[in-house]
Amino acid sequence: MTTIAHTPPPHTPPPHTLPPHPPSPLSLAAGTTQRARELTEPLLREAVALLEPWTAVMSSYHLGWCRADGSPVEHASGKAVRPALAVLAAEAVGAPAEAALPGAAAAELIHNFSLIHDDIMDGDEERRRRPTVWKEFGVSGAILAGDALQVLAFDLLLAKGGPHGPAAAGHLAVALRELVEGQACDIQFSARPWSGPGTVTVAEYQAMAMAKTGALLAGASAMGAVLGGADQPLVHALAEAAGQLGLAFQCVDDILGIWGDPAVTGKPVRGDLRERKKSLPVVAASAASGSVARRLAELLADGRSPAGEEEAEKVLLEAAELIEECGGRRACEREAEQALARARASLDLVPMPAGVRAQYTALADSFVARVM
Amino acid sequence: MTTIAHTPPPHTPPPHTLPPHPPSPLSLAAGTTQRARELTEPLLREAVALLEPWTAVMSSYHLGWCRADGSPVEHASGKAVRPALAVLAAEAVGAPAEAALPGAAAAELIHNFSLIHDDIMDGDEERRRRPTVWKEFGVSGAILAGDALQVLAFDLLLAKGGPHGPAAAGHLAVALRELVEGQACDIQFSARPWSGPGTVTVAEYQAMAMAKTGALLAGASAMGAVLGGADQPLVHALAEAAGQLGLAFQCVDDILGIWGDPAVTGKPVRGDLRERKKSLPVVAASAASGSVARRLAELLADGRSPAGEEEAEKVLLEAAELIEECGGRRACEREAEQALARARASLDLVPMPAGVRAQYTALADSFVARVM
Repeated sequence: MTTIAHTPPPHTPPPHTLPPHPPSPLSLAAGTTQRARELTEPLLREAVALLEPWTAVMSSYHLGWCRADGSPVEHASGKAVRPALAVLAAEAVGAPAEAALPGAAAAELIHNFSLIHDDIMDGDEERRRRPTVWKEFGVSGAILAGDALQVLAFDLLLAKGGPHGPAAAGHLAVALRELVEGQACDIQFSARPWSGPGTVTVAEYQAMAMAKTGALLAGASAMGAVLGGADQPLVHALAEAAGQLGLAFQCVDDILGIWGDPAVTGKPVRGDLRERKKSLPVVAASAASGSVARRLAELLADGRSPAGEEEAEKVLLEAAELIEECGGRRACEREAEQALARARASLDLVPMPAGVRAQYTALADSFVARVM
Repeated sequence: MTTIAHTPPPHTPPPHTLPPHPPSPLSLAAGTTQRARELTEPLLREAVALLEPWTAVMSSYHLGWCRADGSPVEHASGKAVRPALAVLAAEAVGAPAEAALPGAAAAELIHNFSLIHDDIMDGDEERRRRPTVWKEFGVSGAILAGDALQVLAFDLLLAKGGPHGPAAAGHLAVALRELVEGQACDIQFSARPWSGPGTVTVAEYQAMAMAKTGALLAGASAMGAVLGGADQPLVHALAEAAGQLGLAFQCVDDILGIWGDPAVTGKPVRGDLRERKKSLPVVAASAASGSVARRLAELLADGRSPAGEEEAEKVLLEAAELIEECGGRRACEREAEQALARARASLDLVPMPAGVRAQYTALADSFVARVM
């Protein structure tokens, strides 16, 4: 019996050969993030295991590894986009995926630190269809869990990054500073008016999105390239490409936040309008002039709660239509396309194996395939 | 007139000569922390200036450099104990004070990050006789300001630490992990019972205090020594000494938290008892047996608010007396003395210039001089 189990069946292809037909771009992208997640997760688990039990449980809960009582779950984690970019950057410059892993894990730790803290600041009660950390463990616990993940990122990179670890940690520190800055800008946007002087401009929005979403994707790529031994120009081109992908990603997220299908996004329909978020479609629409734009600003600025649930939905629906009429959706789509084009242009500067380039292209396409 | 102001009076000694009589240990210690603060502050200001305006104002407000509206104040900052330990460690191993400054500034940034976040977690509304950051700017702002200071610490160390910067950053990451762990333990202590199974033990308290207070003092010393080019055994001895000083410091703080004079401490009398903090005098007293200890546990566990302010004060006064009767205060003083002795023993292992040793001794004595 055991001999049979150890003998491969006659038609099983040897591992790591290419499949007979080229995979579709979307399944190629999914394969890339899946591979990055599997490669990175052991380091993440090892890092989280260093924490004292309470912080470890909160972090593991957030990462989808356990329930609130600490019992393990068969998990389907997040998308591992940052580890994928770190791994691809290392492979693009001719290093093995393994070289990038401390950077991949550090970027994922920082990403999750920011999710945990942002959920407190934004008052979000659900993430991935479960209560957020602050909702489950209290605000103090969530502050601590976030702090702990931030520390682990630097700890891991400096302890396991090898000779290029410190340079990678330098890139991480810069990305993290921008990330915090982006969140600070985003929070301050909420206090700004919907029209007239002080309205958030498209340029301000772009700067915020580049900092809040682009910086860590750029940092993950820079770390992967640096850990792979790349020189400054290559590091820069790969980081720039990833930063632009981040901007495209944020634009798509903003479109889904208003017009996304709740069954697909897992978020309520028109959720960003309900929360009066100054996302790009709204910001771009607010820059328009004329009676439609004025009506939109009135609608969004109106602090009164409509009579009932049904009335509230009607207001949100009208706002969504006005945003489209003012060109807010189209402007956001165009911004995503342009950011994607800039990302591709940066990638074109980097000589890399064809297989790696195909994965980059597929990943970039998957970022915007959700809406276009 | 102006010529007189610009001409030194005939008997003014030239700058930097020794005073005619050796200074008292306390004024020597004050001079050491003052010098470290003055050397470190330019780096701190340069780092904070990197932040976007809102985060920069919150951080500067916390650091005592400005009012909540951003207008500058003539400030009297905190004690700069961590910068002093970093500077002394560098000088102990024969390096100039300047070598330690990136480590000194990083330790101070981390210290202030932890104060800002701890004030949220503990619900503390005042610090240094002003509203805390969360009280003044809201919880979201305070989370962000803390996060920003944490980032700046690594950013500064990696960007300005020179060839030993990465090694110093490694020490900082370890210290920071312990700091977060210590805070996690401290928070969890509050949910533990006052007597019977699950009561916090003296050993658990020591571990918490070493992590929460000792680790960053040890980290500051390790960074100073590493940046000064010291080898591992010296780094270790200096860090160990500073960690023990941290434990002594915490014990003294705990004594002041119950028996301190509000006019000196700036904190309410018996404040730690009012907040039902499981500080060392209480933990040590709870370990005693007999009727006095039972009465103390009853008093502390009683969740009912006494009838009025006067009644509440009577309860706190009785609890303070019972703690003393059970030997809680004496145990805490002994713990501080022992930690101080361990610190001195570690320092004795390190050959260093006599002037540096005198400053170390004075600083150590100043830690406990507040109560003994």
